[in-house]
Amino acid sequence: MMRVDGRKNNAARPIRITRGVQKGVPGSVLIEQGDTHVICSAIVEERVPPFLKNSGKGWITAEYAMLPGSSGQQRINRDRERASGRSSEIQRFVGRALRTVIDLRAISEYTIQIDTDVLQADGSTRCAAINGGMLALALALKHMVFEQLIAELPRLGWLGAVSLGVHQDQVLVDLDYKEDSAIDMDINLVSTAANQIVELSAFGEGRPVPDTVFGTVLALGLQANRAIIATLQQAAREAGLHV
Amino acid sequence: MMRVDGRKNNAARPIRITRGVQKGVPGSVLIEQGDTHVICSAIVEERVPPFLKNSGKGWITAEYAMLPGSSGQQRINRDRERASGRSSEIQRFVGRALRTVIDLRAISEYTIQIDTDVLQADGSTRCAAINGGMLALALALKHMVFEQLIAELPRLGWLGAVSLGVHQDQVLVDLDYKEDSAIDMDINLVSTAANQIVELSAFGEGRPVPDTVFGTVLALGLQANRAIIATLQQAAREAGLHV
Amino acid sequence: MMRVDGRKNNAARPIRITRGVQKGVPGSVLIEQGDTHVICSAIVEERVPPFLKNSGKGWITAEYAMLPGSSGQQRINRDRERASGRSSEIQRFVGRALRTVIDLRAISEYTIQIDTDVLQADGSTRCAAINGGMLALALALKHMVFEQLIAELPRLGWLGAVSLGVHQDQVLVDLDYKEDSAIDMDINLVSTAANQIVELSAFGEGRPVPDTVFGTVLALGLQANRAIIATLQQAAREAGLHV
Amino acid sequence: MMRVDGRKNNAARPIRITRGVQKGVPGSVLIEQGDTHVICSAIVEERVPPFLKNSGKGWITAEYAMLPGSSGQQRINRDRERASGRSSEIQRFVGRALRTVIDLRAISEYTIQIDTDVLQADGSTRCAAINGGMLALALALKHMVFEQLIAELPRLGWLGAVSLGVHQDQVLVDLDYKEDSAIDMDINLVSTAANQIVELSAFGEGRPVPDTVFGTVLALGLQANRAIIATLQQAAREAGLHV
Amino acid sequence: MMRVDGRKNNAARPIRITRGVQKGVPGSVLIEQGDTHVICSAIVEERVPPFLKNSGKGWITAEYAMLPGSSGQQRINRDRERASGRSSEIQRFVGRALRTVIDLRAISEYTIQIDTDVLQADGSTRCAAINGGMLALALALKHMVFEQLIAELPRLGWLGAVSLGVHQDQVLVDLDYKEDSAIDMDINLVSTAANQIVELSAFGEGRPVPDTVFGTVLALGLQANRAIIATLQQAAREAGLHV
Amino acid sequence: MMRVDGRKNNAARPIRITRGVQKGVPGSVLIEQGDTHVICSAIVEERVPPFLKNSGKGWITAEYAMLPGSSGQQRINRDRERASGRSSEIQRFVGRALRTVIDLRAISEYTIQIDTDVLQADGSTRCAAINGGMLALALALKHMVFEQLIAELPRLGWLGAVSLGVHQDQVLVDLDYKEDSAIDMDINLVSTAANQIVELSAFGEGRPVPDTVFGTVLALGLQANRAIIATLQQAAREAGLHV
Repeated sequence: MMRVDGRKNNAARPIRITRGVQKGVPGSVLIEQGDTHVICSAIVEERVPPFLKNSGKGWITAEYAMLPGSSGQQRINRDRERASGRSSEIQRFVGRALRTVIDLRAISEYTIQIDTDVLQADGSTRCAAINGGMLALALALKHMVFEQLIAELPRLGWLGAVSLGVHQDQVLVDLDYKEDSAIDMDINLVSTAANQIVELSAFGEGRPVPDTVFGTVLALGLQANRAIIATLQQAAREAGLHV
Repeated sequence: MMRVDGRKNNAARPIRITRGVQKGVPGSVLIEQGDTHVICSAIVEERVPPFLKNSGKGWITAEYAMLPGSSGQQRINRDRERASGRSSEIQRFVGRALRTVIDLRAISEYTIQIDTDVLQADGSTRCAAINGGMLALALALKHMVFEQLIAELPRLGWLGAVSLGVHQDQVLVDLDYKEDSAIDMDINLVSTAANQIVELSAFGEGRPVPDTVFGTVLALGLQANRAIIATLQQAAREAGLHV
Repeated sequence: MMRVDGRKNNAARPIRITRGVQKGVPGSVLIEQGDTHVICSAIVEERVPPFLKNSGKGWITAEYAMLPGSSGQQRINRDRERASGRSSEIQRFVGRALRTVIDLRAISEYTIQIDTDVLQADGSTRCAAINGGMLALALALKHMVFEQLIAELPRLGWLGAVSLGVHQDQVLVDLDYKEDSAIDMDINLVSTAANQIVELSAFGEGRPVPDTVFGTVLALGLQANRAIIATLQQAAREAGLHV
Repeated sequence: MMRVDGRKNNAARPIRITRGVQKGVPGSVLIEQGDTHVICSAIVEERVPPFLKNSGKGWITAEYAMLPGSSGQQRINRDRERASGRSSEIQRFVGRALRTVIDLRAISEYTIQIDTDVLQADGSTRCAAINGGMLALALALKHMVFEQLIAELPRLGWLGAVSLGVHQDQVLVDLDYKEDSAIDMDINLVSTAANQIVELSAFGEGRPVPDTVFGTVLALGLQANRAIIATLQQAAREAGLHV
Repeated sequence: MMRVDGRKNNAARPIRITRGVQKGVPGSVLIEQGDTHVICSAIVEERVPPFLKNSGKGWITAEYAMLPGSSGQQRINRDRERASGRSSEIQRFVGRALRTVIDLRAISEYTIQIDTDVLQADGSTRCAAINGGMLALALALKHMVFEQLIAELPRLGWLGAVSLGVHQDQVLVDLDYKEDSAIDMDINLVSTAANQIVELSAFGEGRPVPDTVFGTVLALGLQANRAIIATLQQAAREAGLHV
Repeated sequence: MMRVDGRKNNAARPIRITRGVQKGVPGSVLIEQGDTHVICSAIVEERVPPFLKNSGKGWITAEYAMLPGSSGQQRINRDRERASGRSSEIQRFVGRALRTVIDLRAISEYTIQIDTDVLQADGSTRCAAINGGMLALALALKHMVFEQLIAELPRLGWLGAVSLGVHQDQVLVDLDYKEDSAIDMDINLVSTAANQIVELSAFGEGRPVPDTVFGTVLALGLQANRAIIATLQQAAREAGLHV
């Protein structure tokens, strides 16, 4: 399969990061992965969900939405009556990943609320949400230290997220929208720089995929995420974080 | 009252317009009025609300929302169960204004859906939504001509929107957030280049305002809107519209 | 424009007030402005919204609804899933006006809940809701003194509300339903006996209105509201309030 | 048990009926049973629910709500998110009773929507809703003949509704609010002039009631309903219906 | 009327009870009345509704739902936006009945939550829900004693529930689905072993029923409930309750 | 890690299948995997979602819910306002898997609605829902042939679903509730008899898992699913399907 933009199968799209796009937000990041643009904010609130009251642990949670104009002429309806099934699934995926990044006892009883809003969608939006959210979270933690809400920066388990597609047993890295629509199976992999798997989801409504392909999927996905993590850490260092 | 940023009482903040921020959207505009940033999209759909079926008339409607991180550390909850009272009020205000811009028979039975999402809020977001929505609407009409959905560009009644505040009988133009919180009465004026009033709302929970001040309010507001309209029209011309 | 019922352009419809229509309600008023009939109740509750806890301030809020049969053969659906956009907009308008009537510190941490239900609608229902709500509120305050919830009657800033229409640059006072449907711009003015403007909204989906007409709008509206306030105060005096 | 207002155990409160309280509504009735006041409207709509499409049968349905001020100082929250369990139960009770009044084939595929809104509640509101709804329905049917929607008035099975209470094996007719709160079992009986039972509900959270008392309940209830039906029919005759 | 399964008019269907169908639930019962199968659970929670805070009284409440496949090929939609009118009515009926079973002061400030889910529906599901719920409640009370939440088993007012139908003045006991659809009036009777009536509802959209038939209805219904209560008590004794 | 019930790490719990548990439902299955019991129904409806109108394709969709008593003393609230995030995620997972089983053109424009309700939960409920749903779907397809809705049984891609856990780099098959709570990563694998992967999700809030463990996860999961598929096919053959 020739890729839409001529990329090699194992090549992810370039990433561009802008910090501070929302004035006054502790962790504010615009992440652009190709034509997928996601604005991520991390806001600290002095509360925890009921099941963590008096536990000494904090919480990290995420919300995800697409702007109505993010998909071109096909308008996306707002989730005004409830989060749609798709939004629910994605924001649970994002939240679960980001909760593994630190030991939640390190932020005592604060909640860090990660919001990820897709300005423009060209595939892999949930991965971009995780990547932007990872950096926003790190920036928010630095802010918490600065505001003396916590004594020191918790140890951070940096992670990256990338999509992969399997098409006729070939593996593609970082799908754009057209590729996403054409492949047999869509995979999202969240992993660490040390090749540890944090989350993995694979599903498709096309042909099932032989298990033998999964070795390639993991190898290419882990490689891509190592590069993404390096990019995120570089942006963090530019913001004064010691990574 | 000395203004926060040293502006004169009758001075509006500079406006910056970026077109095409959402790939594939016929009318796509990012409008920045000072630190208030609103992303506006206009999408054409081949349907009308039930009360216009077989009427030969089209429809223009608007939705408004704030991103959770748009107000800094004070997170804005999403309207996930229903549009809040505030969002409802604002999007009705925006939609009513934009429906006066053309004769709705000129777009036969199409709906133009205007979405206005506040990326960053520093006062006057509803006015920025109208201004950005006005331009997005004009661009979408041009697209309809291009796609031969309509035969020619309808006659456009360009309008601008500006906020004004009354504080101890002084009138301020284009309030930022801090000013908005401090004044006695908050006014939003939508008007045309010919000084015709399209919509006006004035309310406050502070001191009532003597009727004699209203002359100044109208004069300064109409003047500001003429300048805003000129800015919008300039951007339209750059996009190839004959205005 | 000849008016439907032969009134002069500057003539409001006669007002009829009945107190005590709901047994046991501190402030209970049926207000009839022509064929627009609104039942208003003001009930005192020992609570405030979260943002006023421990502030020493009370709260005044309003709800608005139309009975299903209030508009004749065209049944009005109940707001059973949420307040409609129109109801939200109106009750925010009513609540904001009534909150300016007293200094909220004067009722310490009580909420006065104003309910306005339209039994019969013939235009200007939101103004009738404010006028009836104003009187109900005054009666509820008297009740609070009687029950020793507050030490003395707060200083009351009496206000009145009236609708105005602009049609081909002519100004009509107190629109009925047919007039409301025919005019270019619909204006609602809330003001005090001292000609101070409390709230103003003007919108229309017809022709925009030249700014020069606004002088007449304000003059006629302020005059009408002075008469309305006199009527409300007379009813208050009959209920034993010293006004 | 001495009754609150000195009535005999088998005495219902006086009924007062006002027709035409909502201008333009085909069937418009204000019914007052003592201090319980319910406004009832019957509106004809040219549609049926999906399960009756092309069945040749019409539909009669009812909604019930209490105004927030109907219960004095204890405000009733509006059913703004959904009909409450209580409202659902009552309006199903009212709708079922009124659907037995005519053969639904006689109104072909029209829906008659009965709305019953409690202005003031002093017990037995659901019975007053049925009684007022019965008359409103009859008036709406007359209107349908007048408008030539149906050829002739359907045969009407007039019914009445009354509440009864059992307290220490004594039976009380037509409970007011205080009585309703004090008794062991609350019964609502809907029946015809020919002593036929249309609906009956009996429940209580107090002492269960021996079956031997039920004979008295039925006898007194049927008697009261015969009188209620006579009153409703008299009002119908005054409106020109041949009953 | 010949009954579908050849039963005599006064014969209820056989009842089969299985305890412990949900591991770990204090009161867990599967009740089968003919082909109507309802799974009932009673769970104890350490809370009461707001109106009982600090009252020394506990609460018993019920929920009712049908599984989507419970009615064969006609799928039942889930109550995913709200409890439907029918579900609301039924669960209020069930909850009211079960609250009469004990003096609520005997369980101090605990709530016993009864859930009744219809696995298979063949008529009379609300009665089966009450019967199964009665037994589940008794088992939960035994569990409360065992867990020392309460000192001793409260005095239990055992009750049974049965449906009856009137068809052309004949009375049928315990209707199945086909009978339920064919009769003139559907009656649900909840009563005690001592022939005391706890709840009664009778409604139909067919022919009204003469009052003279009600004697037979009560006699047959009370008789059926005495047998049902004996069955429930036998099952309770097998679970070690002293009844 | 010693397993709770002494199973070997690679041993799934025994499966027990009962067909026909809901009278009249084309595909009705109770599946018990250890103490996890799920009732599955497949109902055929003559409609498709809007996006498939006139496409010649049918649809398969799934819903998932837990009965309130399914988790013992910890009551599960019903999804009465909306499907919870967890329910949404699971039913999307189930529906996606089952849509791969046949070519959707083979059922023309019918929808097969799969409902999966958890009677008792002891881990792996989403896998049991898929397994029971797979069999129910096959039975419903046989019913469609019998009813001549489709000409012949479509080619079936049988699949199985199993959960796996990773704990300190050990892999466990088919987790029960206690194991599920203790492990580092929870994996759900849906695959075919030919070792093709249909869906895979892996997530945890514990320690990330090295990629090297994934080979074992896939090997054990595929093996377990082959055995599950054999069990489902055996049950299908007993129902007269030629598999």
